[in-house]
Amino acid sequence: MNAVEKKFLEHCQKRKLFSKNERVLMALSGGADSVALLCLLSAIQPVLKLTLAAAHCNFRLRGTASDSDETFCKKLCAKRNIPLFSTRFETKRIAAERKTSLEETARNLRYAYFEEIAETHNFTKITTAHHADDNVETILFNLSRGSSILGLSGIAEQRGSIVRPMLYLSRADILDYLKSKRQRYRTDASNFSDDFDRNFIRLRVIPLLEKRFKHKLSANLLRLAANVTELAAFLDEHLEQLAQKKTLDLAQGRFQVADLKSLTPFEQKELFKRALKRFSIEPNATLLSDLVHLLQTQSGRKIVVSPALQVHWKGKEILFVKI
Amino acid sequence: MNAVEKKFLEHCQKRKLFSKNERVLMALSGGADSVALLCLLSAIQPVLKLTLAAAHCNFRLRGTASDSDETFCKKLCAKRNIPLFSTRFETKRIAAERKTSLEETARNLRYAYFEEIAETHNFTKITTAHHADDNVETILFNLSRGSSILGLSGIAEQRGSIVRPMLYLSRADILDYLKSKRQRYRTDASNFSDDFDRNFIRLRVIPLLEKRFKHKLSANLLRLAANVTELAAFLDEHLEQLAQKKTLDLAQGRFQVADLKSLTPFEQKELFKRALKRFSIEPNATLLSDLVHLLQTQSGRKIVVSPALQVHWKGKEILFVKI
Repeated sequence: MNAVEKKFLEHCQKRKLFSKNERVLMALSGGADSVALLCLLSAIQPVLKLTLAAAHCNFRLRGTASDSDETFCKKLCAKRNIPLFSTRFETKRIAAERKTSLEETARNLRYAYFEEIAETHNFTKITTAHHADDNVETILFNLSRGSSILGLSGIAEQRGSIVRPMLYLSRADILDYLKSKRQRYRTDASNFSDDFDRNFIRLRVIPLLEKRFKHKLSANLLRLAANVTELAAFLDEHLEQLAQKKTLDLAQGRFQVADLKSLTPFEQKELFKRALKRFSIEPNATLLSDLVHLLQTQSGRKIVVSPALQVHWKGKEILFVKI
Repeated sequence: MNAVEKKFLEHCQKRKLFSKNERVLMALSGGADSVALLCLLSAIQPVLKLTLAAAHCNFRLRGTASDSDETFCKKLCAKRNIPLFSTRFETKRIAAERKTSLEETARNLRYAYFEEIAETHNFTKITTAHHADDNVETILFNLSRGSSILGLSGIAEQRGSIVRPMLYLSRADILDYLKSKRQRYRTDASNFSDDFDRNFIRLRVIPLLEKRFKHKLSANLLRLAANVTELAAFLDEHLEQLAQKKTLDLAQGRFQVADLKSLTPFEQKELFKRALKRFSIEPNATLLSDLVHLLQTQSGRKIVVSPALQVHWKGKEILFVKI
């Protein structure tokens, strides 16, 4: 193992990303990021006794280049003796049928395929090759298009069975590593995080900010994201404790007005957010403000949230009422 | 009163920025923003029965242009019958003596002058003309140079006696308003928020993002800032409640380990942050992580925070110890 691989092992151990003997499926496009992930996972495989396999999707969106990516992945895995699952999609046709964008269609197809393989072949983790630059891009993207504080937590390192063990590495680190190993990769391998706004953030905004703030931008944003992730964990616990009181019944959408009023507007909004989600409503800032404002009115008032949901102030209670 | 002035009055009333009969001192540079503030405050003065006065600083940094700004302010106030306090500073000399930048020197001199007048002449509020664009700039600036979540709250609408009643107005709103009143202003009036990084954010980054995100950027960032401001209020209350327990004694820097351990890392950090501030230490992310990590070690361990402060784990307690 070289220094980069040792650090990768330490990172995975410290963050408890994999258990010993775990079965790990990795997403492989053939691009630099996922090829680096394959090398890194191969390097730590003997230590953690992982069972490794790769999965490749050919979306047939770039003609022969797509097929060459597929061939590249097959050869790479054969050479390294890693089982490869691969599939082809008629992405254009499916996107037209589902009326979704090519990017979204590809993303949905890909994750569905990975999960299907994981289930069929008992893989307990699916890893993707997202790195620090992807994370910075996501944070600035969420910030620009509008996000609550919690949206600034960036890309999750772990969510369910999906793990991103390379989030601490920059794009430059990854290229250096591949160079040091003389490992080839496909430069045009499909990357479906590339919608136009994201490209704009990556190619125009980040270089501009990095130039002025002397490469501290990335570290600063990632530290902020870590800070927000900790905030989210605290809020989840705090809100869960609040909702354990019978007087603040999230599941039933039944809250004692006096208890709500004893909370700060921030807590009221977070509580309403969670209640709305249980009633399958995606909360927005205006609705949350309206609900907080309701508490400053009087019994008898109500808010029409959707054709299917109203929120009433009735006597001593605020009630979420399905219509 | 025209529509803009009526909305300004409503805003001030809703946000309780001024009490009736209050004595208000306003910062006047002669630029569009502060001239608009003077017009707006004049318009609502009879309704709220405010006593108004203006204060101008001539920093003598732009030769005759600085003196023309001063003359313009004097004429404007004379015409509107508003008392004007004005002063001149040898800013360059003072900056050299204090070894601070011109921007910082001017800022310090200005606020000190305002506060001195306020105290001598019993003004209870000092108002500045910061607007929504300044706020967006501040948020992106804090974000780029590194900030905790709470740093994203932007410019405070009220802090002590200082009030910024124009934060809801954009630069474009302000220029429209002045145009509709045919009110002249000085286009080069000193603006000492203009350090180079801020200019860069204002002139390069914001136009780029606004172009792509179709003028929603500003609204999105301001909504985020409002969200963070509410978070800050909640956290203050939550941490105050925590610190009311005798086992978490902020003032003495004396914490029961068991009680600390029952908190989330986010709460631990916020608690340590406040404790450090009481010991006049400006907390940074690394130090806070080290302190949280201390809780995962064992009794007997300590962290040297500064030459004057150490944090010890002794028996069942974490102790902040002055050296």
